[in-house]
Amino acid sequence: MTEKVVIIGGGAAGPKTAAKLRRERADLQIDLYTQEDIISYSACGLPYFIENIIQNPETLIIRTPEDFQEKNINIHTKQRCLKINTVTKSVLMEDLVSHNIYEVAYGILVIATGAKPDIPDIEGIHLKNIFTLRTIDDGIRIKQKMQKSKKAVLVGGGYISIELMEALVSNNIQVTLIEKNSQILKVFDEDFAQMITDYIIGKTPGQVSILTNEKIKFFVGNEDGEVTKVVLVSGKEIETDFVVLGTGVRPNTDIVEGTNIKLGIKNSIKVDNTLRTSVHGIYAVGDCTDNFNLVTNSRTWVPMGSTANKEGRCAAINIAGGSCFFDGILNSTITKYFDYTISIIGISYKEALEFGFQPVFAIVSKRDKAGYMPNNESMTLKLIVDKNTHTILGLQGIGEGDVNKRINTVISAILSKTKLESFMNLDLPYSPPYSPAIDPVLNAAQIIYQKING
Amino acid sequence: MTEKVVIIGGGAAGPKTAAKLRRERADLQIDLYTQEDIISYSACGLPYFIENIIQNPETLIIRTPEDFQEKNINIHTKQRCLKINTVTKSVLMEDLVSHNIYEVAYGILVIATGAKPDIPDIEGIHLKNIFTLRTIDDGIRIKQKMQKSKKAVLVGGGYISIELMEALVSNNIQVTLIEKNSQILKVFDEDFAQMITDYIIGKTPGQVSILTNEKIKFFVGNEDGEVTKVVLVSGKEIETDFVVLGTGVRPNTDIVEGTNIKLGIKNSIKVDNTLRTSVHGIYAVGDCTDNFNLVTNSRTWVPMGSTANKEGRCAAINIAGGSCFFDGILNSTITKYFDYTISIIGISYKEALEFGFQPVFAIVSKRDKAGYMPNNESMTLKLIVDKNTHTILGLQGIGEGDVNKRINTVISAILSKTKLESFMNLDLPYSPPYSPAIDPVLNAAQIIYQKING
Repeated sequence: MTEKVVIIGGGAAGPKTAAKLRRERADLQIDLYTQEDIISYSACGLPYFIENIIQNPETLIIRTPEDFQEKNINIHTKQRCLKINTVTKSVLMEDLVSHNIYEVAYGILVIATGAKPDIPDIEGIHLKNIFTLRTIDDGIRIKQKMQKSKKAVLVGGGYISIELMEALVSNNIQVTLIEKNSQILKVFDEDFAQMITDYIIGKTPGQVSILTNEKIKFFVGNEDGEVTKVVLVSGKEIETDFVVLGTGVRPNTDIVEGTNIKLGIKNSIKVDNTLRTSVHGIYAVGDCTDNFNLVTNSRTWVPMGSTANKEGRCAAINIAGGSCFFDGILNSTITKYFDYTISIIGISYKEALEFGFQPVFAIVSKRDKAGYMPNNESMTLKLIVDKNTHTILGLQGIGEGDVNKRINTVISAILSKTKLESFMNLDLPYSPPYSPAIDPVLNAAQIIYQKING
Repeated sequence: MTEKVVIIGGGAAGPKTAAKLRRERADLQIDLYTQEDIISYSACGLPYFIENIIQNPETLIIRTPEDFQEKNINIHTKQRCLKINTVTKSVLMEDLVSHNIYEVAYGILVIATGAKPDIPDIEGIHLKNIFTLRTIDDGIRIKQKMQKSKKAVLVGGGYISIELMEALVSNNIQVTLIEKNSQILKVFDEDFAQMITDYIIGKTPGQVSILTNEKIKFFVGNEDGEVTKVVLVSGKEIETDFVVLGTGVRPNTDIVEGTNIKLGIKNSIKVDNTLRTSVHGIYAVGDCTDNFNLVTNSRTWVPMGSTANKEGRCAAINIAGGSCFFDGILNSTITKYFDYTISIIGISYKEALEFGFQPVFAIVSKRDKAGYMPNNESMTLKLIVDKNTHTILGLQGIGEGDVNKRINTVISAILSKTKLESFMNLDLPYSPPYSPAIDPVLNAAQIIYQKING
């Protein structure tokens, strides 16, 4: 009998698993179930759809259900998984249109249920025009509301709020960001978070307010049940036409509860480096799984679209009978505010201290190209090295210059635990339109070398 | 008595050594001698001065003699070194103004004499308006001639000719490039050299001709001794207003001949990874030294401004009593033709075969950002992996997309001999304005993985 592979989840990881598995194995039956009516789309592109850099939301769709059907992959939209039974090897499903409940047997099960917004328990949170942004429908709703609005409040100072701030400011919306901690972008060190804040305020003066150390007390609505005001614990009141909650996400793993599938950090599904869960024949991929941090050698949970794609691909190879290892992540993230790149890989200085390293850092502010080239731009890098092992722990980079190149220059060195002494003389290709003769990231390494060696 | 450090050469490596040495040690006497009247300039910027992206050639000067004098470094311009006497520890110098000959004693000697153009022995080679491009004076002469010209011939299809082609075409010069081999840019594989050629012709149609497999028979001059025509062995004749020879360079090491300082490949000075020559107390840095290729584990000679700077810095640390190792290079180079980047690191497929590797390659042509972002650009990458060790041997990249980022992503992986299996799941930071969810360079790695594992 043909082995039947059932995949639950239609975001990035599930469809990637299905597509790769079909390329590897023509013989398997593959069934993918999703609650939504579309699958396989890039949620990371939604801020740019709202900004109107992308006009048609359908361009975010990578593959349609029809594309999958053509490849003999059965796509079941608007179907919700209620429960997994690992003893009978079946899942309990609900048809969201007819509300029929039915059982589906699996040979191999792939859980790709992703993450869901972490909604804070605040009075008025269910008022109209308080949004989260995960799906294309969310994006369409926010964009439609934005086009009739003048003021917005973003709750939470993470990446999504920075991206939405660009989108909203570009559409002449007055934006207030509310962050409960003392800094936005908590993965960064405080000095960098402050520089980023200063840049945003300076780049779009009068258009954005960033309020840190502020908590929301309650939301006020009008008679139509629409949000009109945000009241803070400090007593401040902010009038607004709509609110987007960027208060974080958590693993969408309710269906795993009550099974013998082991959960890890923040209730994400524990997987090994082959994407197998603790139960034989069940894999998990994407935002619902935990991750291994290769710098700290510890389990973590960092939901990322790029990781979801790699895990889906890797799991498919293993399901097909091949051998693929997904060893872990480096907490790599990047975003931008207009032309200003904001990126971090590895761990910050404060995290390095928390994890018991002996971090030494260097901050360099340099031009990204030879200083005499007319189009050179500035950037600031913070490189962190462990004094004990001389290995690189992390890099933070910000600026209008080519930060991304410097970030990527360091990644393999972190992965391979290259010594500072080798890294600082790394033979980067040089030409005046691309970098100074000694690249700023090597300058930073050289400064740390001097610090360590007196 | 204060130890006296004598540095011969004023390009990139000599001044870098002097400046770093002074920062490390206030007590040493430092004397730098150069034939030219300026020192410490970026020769790599000269094509952009000719193009007129840079108007003032003085902006290419990193530090003036006065900057050095202020730091108590004695700069002696227009002084030529004739001979080194390693027994008496002195150098024989000629004052190029007075033509006085005199001796200078040294405690430590640093040879930083760079490279010089390799002038082919062709009839008419000494006609007026046949130039080479190494110094700022060369740049000024070529620019002045260009401004009164309509047609130019570039001899040799290396990086400098590509950069000059952009400069000349931008100034409405009709350019013919003559290359004796079957392809331009011989460090690239033939397929990439052909794609580059096709791009150049397509980008600036009717403005450039690229003639491969063509040798120059002789140059024809007019009664004023100015070049007017280039006659090829094939019989072709090309009328021209001027010629620039990009026929390569060789180590400028005449002063070493007859000494016991060991020479290596192409008569470059053999140095160890501390930049010491075979003679105690004598260092060599920059384009006059040989290099160690970390991919092939063999000596090579690749003159690069970035290497010169790193070697100068490293030698200075060692002269000062510290410890710095310059382990080697990866043959990293980059240039551009307008918005089209041309870059290679490590070794090509053909070189890999020559060196006895079992190379497997993948070529991917992809967009550099998420396909739905409006400003995405194309690029083509060729990744080469050794089938025996699963380590990366090299990467070639071309295109209007962000090739440089992908090149730099791979460099540390080559240095550290990271296995393909680890590299292909590398946690690169992802966001739609920066890359697709799985970066093209990882796609290439995945394809090779499939090729190797059947």
